[in-house]
Amino acid sequence: MNNYVFKTVGLIGKHNGTDGGEAIETLIKYFDGHGIDVTLDENSATMINAKNIETANRQEIGQHCDLAIVIGGDGTLLNAARELIDSDTPLVGVNLGRLGFLADILPSAIEECMDEILCGRYLLEERFLLNCTIRRNDELLKQSYALNEVVVHKWNVARMVELETYINERLVHRQRSDGLIVATPTGSTAYALSAGGPIIYPTLNAVTIVPICPHTMSNRPIVVNGDSEIEIVVVDSNSDDVRVTSDGQVPFELTNGDRIHISKAEKPLRLIHPSQHDHYDLLRAKLQWAEPPKSQR
Amino acid sequence: MNNYVFKTVGLIGKHNGTDGGEAIETLIKYFDGHGIDVTLDENSATMINAKNIETANRQEIGQHCDLAIVIGGDGTLLNAARELIDSDTPLVGVNLGRLGFLADILPSAIEECMDEILCGRYLLEERFLLNCTIRRNDELLKQSYALNEVVVHKWNVARMVELETYINERLVHRQRSDGLIVATPTGSTAYALSAGGPIIYPTLNAVTIVPICPHTMSNRPIVVNGDSEIEIVVVDSNSDDVRVTSDGQVPFELTNGDRIHISKAEKPLRLIHPSQHDHYDLLRAKLQWAEPPKSQR
Amino acid sequence: MNNYVFKTVGLIGKHNGTDGGEAIETLIKYFDGHGIDVTLDENSATMINAKNIETANRQEIGQHCDLAIVIGGDGTLLNAARELIDSDTPLVGVNLGRLGFLADILPSAIEECMDEILCGRYLLEERFLLNCTIRRNDELLKQSYALNEVVVHKWNVARMVELETYINERLVHRQRSDGLIVATPTGSTAYALSAGGPIIYPTLNAVTIVPICPHTMSNRPIVVNGDSEIEIVVVDSNSDDVRVTSDGQVPFELTNGDRIHISKAEKPLRLIHPSQHDHYDLLRAKLQWAEPPKSQR
Amino acid sequence: MNNYVFKTVGLIGKHNGTDGGEAIETLIKYFDGHGIDVTLDENSATMINAKNIETANRQEIGQHCDLAIVIGGDGTLLNAARELIDSDTPLVGVNLGRLGFLADILPSAIEECMDEILCGRYLLEERFLLNCTIRRNDELLKQSYALNEVVVHKWNVARMVELETYINERLVHRQRSDGLIVATPTGSTAYALSAGGPIIYPTLNAVTIVPICPHTMSNRPIVVNGDSEIEIVVVDSNSDDVRVTSDGQVPFELTNGDRIHISKAEKPLRLIHPSQHDHYDLLRAKLQWAEPPKSQR
Repeated sequence: MNNYVFKTVGLIGKHNGTDGGEAIETLIKYFDGHGIDVTLDENSATMINAKNIETANRQEIGQHCDLAIVIGGDGTLLNAARELIDSDTPLVGVNLGRLGFLADILPSAIEECMDEILCGRYLLEERFLLNCTIRRNDELLKQSYALNEVVVHKWNVARMVELETYINERLVHRQRSDGLIVATPTGSTAYALSAGGPIIYPTLNAVTIVPICPHTMSNRPIVVNGDSEIEIVVVDSNSDDVRVTSDGQVPFELTNGDRIHISKAEKPLRLIHPSQHDHYDLLRAKLQWAEPPKSQR
Repeated sequence: MNNYVFKTVGLIGKHNGTDGGEAIETLIKYFDGHGIDVTLDENSATMINAKNIETANRQEIGQHCDLAIVIGGDGTLLNAARELIDSDTPLVGVNLGRLGFLADILPSAIEECMDEILCGRYLLEERFLLNCTIRRNDELLKQSYALNEVVVHKWNVARMVELETYINERLVHRQRSDGLIVATPTGSTAYALSAGGPIIYPTLNAVTIVPICPHTMSNRPIVVNGDSEIEIVVVDSNSDDVRVTSDGQVPFELTNGDRIHISKAEKPLRLIHPSQHDHYDLLRAKLQWAEPPKSQR
Repeated sequence: MNNYVFKTVGLIGKHNGTDGGEAIETLIKYFDGHGIDVTLDENSATMINAKNIETANRQEIGQHCDLAIVIGGDGTLLNAARELIDSDTPLVGVNLGRLGFLADILPSAIEECMDEILCGRYLLEERFLLNCTIRRNDELLKQSYALNEVVVHKWNVARMVELETYINERLVHRQRSDGLIVATPTGSTAYALSAGGPIIYPTLNAVTIVPICPHTMSNRPIVVNGDSEIEIVVVDSNSDDVRVTSDGQVPFELTNGDRIHISKAEKPLRLIHPSQHDHYDLLRAKLQWAEPPKSQR
Repeated sequence: MNNYVFKTVGLIGKHNGTDGGEAIETLIKYFDGHGIDVTLDENSATMINAKNIETANRQEIGQHCDLAIVIGGDGTLLNAARELIDSDTPLVGVNLGRLGFLADILPSAIEECMDEILCGRYLLEERFLLNCTIRRNDELLKQSYALNEVVVHKWNVARMVELETYINERLVHRQRSDGLIVATPTGSTAYALSAGGPIIYPTLNAVTIVPICPHTMSNRPIVVNGDSEIEIVVVDSNSDDVRVTSDGQVPFELTNGDRIHISKAEKPLRLIHPSQHDHYDLLRAKLQWAEPPKSQR
């Protein structure tokens, strides 16, 4: 049982979203009936008919709302989490498609879940983000956040790239591969899993470094403390072969000698789940573990 | 710099060992020259010629010595760590063969390393063990410790076994496979690695559950908090198909409905490393990451 | 279109079967109505009420019937295939549970499929079996057939076994692992797949050798010509640690120096499929490739 | 023992090569002493001092020489194999670095190996290439050959691409991943191995299709007959996300609906090995199977 009181709620839809209008209208009507102020993400205003609803940008929602409801899917929530990182506003996700790992309220259960959340019956979970900075010589070129993963990957070439990884200033390896994924526990069920990484329980204070198609087969995923300072250095000699992305956004081109520094972001995402939320239930459903056996063995 | 003062040292050789006598004699002579009392594991007494050396069993060494030196390899140190678990005596390992992950002093460097250790120049690392208890109905059948891993595995049959796993009383999965490995970070570079598990940094407070040849390919290794209460239940119907081992020792036969409970042991192993010890150096050397690339890509 | 004429049909149920009686009775009635002689596996006679049906053992069914219908699942068909290996009688499988890779007629489609098969509208596929012989010194100890795989595996020990593999008398590797799987294309979707082997198209003339949890991570599955002479030699020093099974049947204990010789059996299984059979359809259904994506990436 | 008589020999160095001049001069002198005509690849002419040596381009070498010797490494031989595909001239490779899978003569053994080859003591092996054609609507856009692999891969995006694969006009799967590798047995030890594919014996008539980081974990490598007609269709909706490369050369950008057709090239590479060549020896050396065990298990 929690004792938050949610007096102002922000609603955030998909970037360039075309679906979700119905769920947003349901939520506006619901909160209106409960005397709770609602602010709508200005990018979502075109998705609904309601005229006299207050709108704001995402940063303002983070500053002024007690709770932000994200309507979309895990991808929408990933984006919102990075954009609201400076606020303490907790997020909860309504998933328009299938149940997500992050957005775990189905449209059909919106009102029931909101009843519970307003009464304080919910789970509040902190998920850490990664802070990624890129330096060339001693100049800071770029900073970004990632809730799932930072990926340093080959680009524009068919051959492998060569990267050196340091943890807390100690050399881990110099490795040839298609790239490296540095994933949070949240991201361990996303791209890192496709590349062979382990599933990490969401609240474990750990980061995994997963090589993508490494040349040396003993270069396996490594799991280290979430407070580690990770640095990846591009040692490949060609100039436009390597890129970095955070949660799959805005690739940034790297060159020889560039240093990508990755560590835990100062502020975590505060994620709200319905009270019956169980991460193992989600794993069984989404990875189809519950399925009956299928082959002849 | 540490300020332990080691006044009494225990020496522990291999169980039924035939090699290591020379290293033990070097150590006896070394400590004799430094005015430090030495107690020899009674099982190792036949390995040396020295007559008037005090002997004791391993429990007594744990009770009376300030430091225990294990002469053998990682396997010898694994055994000693379980046997001395009730004491606070730190262990350090001399490796008769190749450098080990645990026993990381080579015979040729014994005296140099001991000089450093006696001066307090060493690394002291805590490695947790697993406490494994087996219950049938409500009866406790067996208790054991593992520094590497507890393995629940099929035996005596060619077909798979079926196991249910619970973490903190929540169902994780019901899974058909050749078995499950529950490994500490220390064990993550042993059997768990062969079965596809990740490499976990030794001091991370985490446990990994790695399926052995699972029927469902999405049943991937999971990493959870080291303080988790893990329970594995045998749901396979045949009576003599499943066994459990701790660090590969003394298989125990399980039957339908048996519950294997695995959690962190109360006392950790206190492991001493030479001051220049670096776990990533060991990984690169032992997993051959440092090797130059070999194939034509 | 095929021009076999099936005048006598054998029906084979599960060993010690308790289900399948209904499907057998449907088939008896169906063939009775079509003037085709039916012989029932003597082990299946207790499963039905019909009294005046002719029974025979499986070898006799192989000798006297033009077609054998196996009622059970892939496991039942695996057994029947080995038992009828000396005959040329084609087999077709009715699967009492889910669709199998081998037994691909559902009970609800029995009559429709039989109509087609009697008209010659079916696919006839040859699947090769492995012939496995074990020699100690120069003595032949045992011979067996496998349609899926021969497995040489550790047993009774927690530690790895050491095996040498030769192909056409050339050393492939000396390997420490939990064992080795030598699988046919048919077996590539069974145990070999769980151990990390590739999926091999059923009619490819190839055999795959898949290590089980190998110590060295670059010891990956190998695919060689189906006509290869494969020999596995036990080089592990302990006497009762290694066993061999064929299709999971009757483990045979090996000792140091034993040689397991594996090559293609002289006669293939002749397997009949309904005319709309498509192996890729089965793969998509059974390995759930057709499933919509589930995670947030 | 073979009865080829090599009267004219072509020498082919690295593209833009800076090393290899010494080996080329050794070969020129060697053949000069044996009364055999030598033609030098015109691109390699700058690498040596010899003035009055005949030069030609690679196609001419293919047309006029009885044997082509490639001096470089596996990559150099891959390029030469594609360029000489229209000729029947056998190739043999001198490896300037470590022993290669294809180029398996070390500079120190050049004369000894040539003595043997001129006497007919060598192994002649046929390795098939893939013929890759790309069609947009009904127009042929591009044709290329690959000795190792054709790769259809994501490019310019962080998210996965979606591809449909057909074999002999039957749908295999519609798959989301980072891409697909279609590899020959020769290529099975190159990029396909890093992506999790099996090792295929070089002369097996088979092709493997290996997914790169597939979203669905049961999307495993498939091995099919080498005579299969494979077609991969881009079903991803964005226009500049997918590319195709053959042996890592010259990426070609694909768009939605493009069809990549891959089948065995008409003419194989005819590869000459020294008579003591053994592919398993190479595997053990290059994948370090022969190494003594390294971890503590």
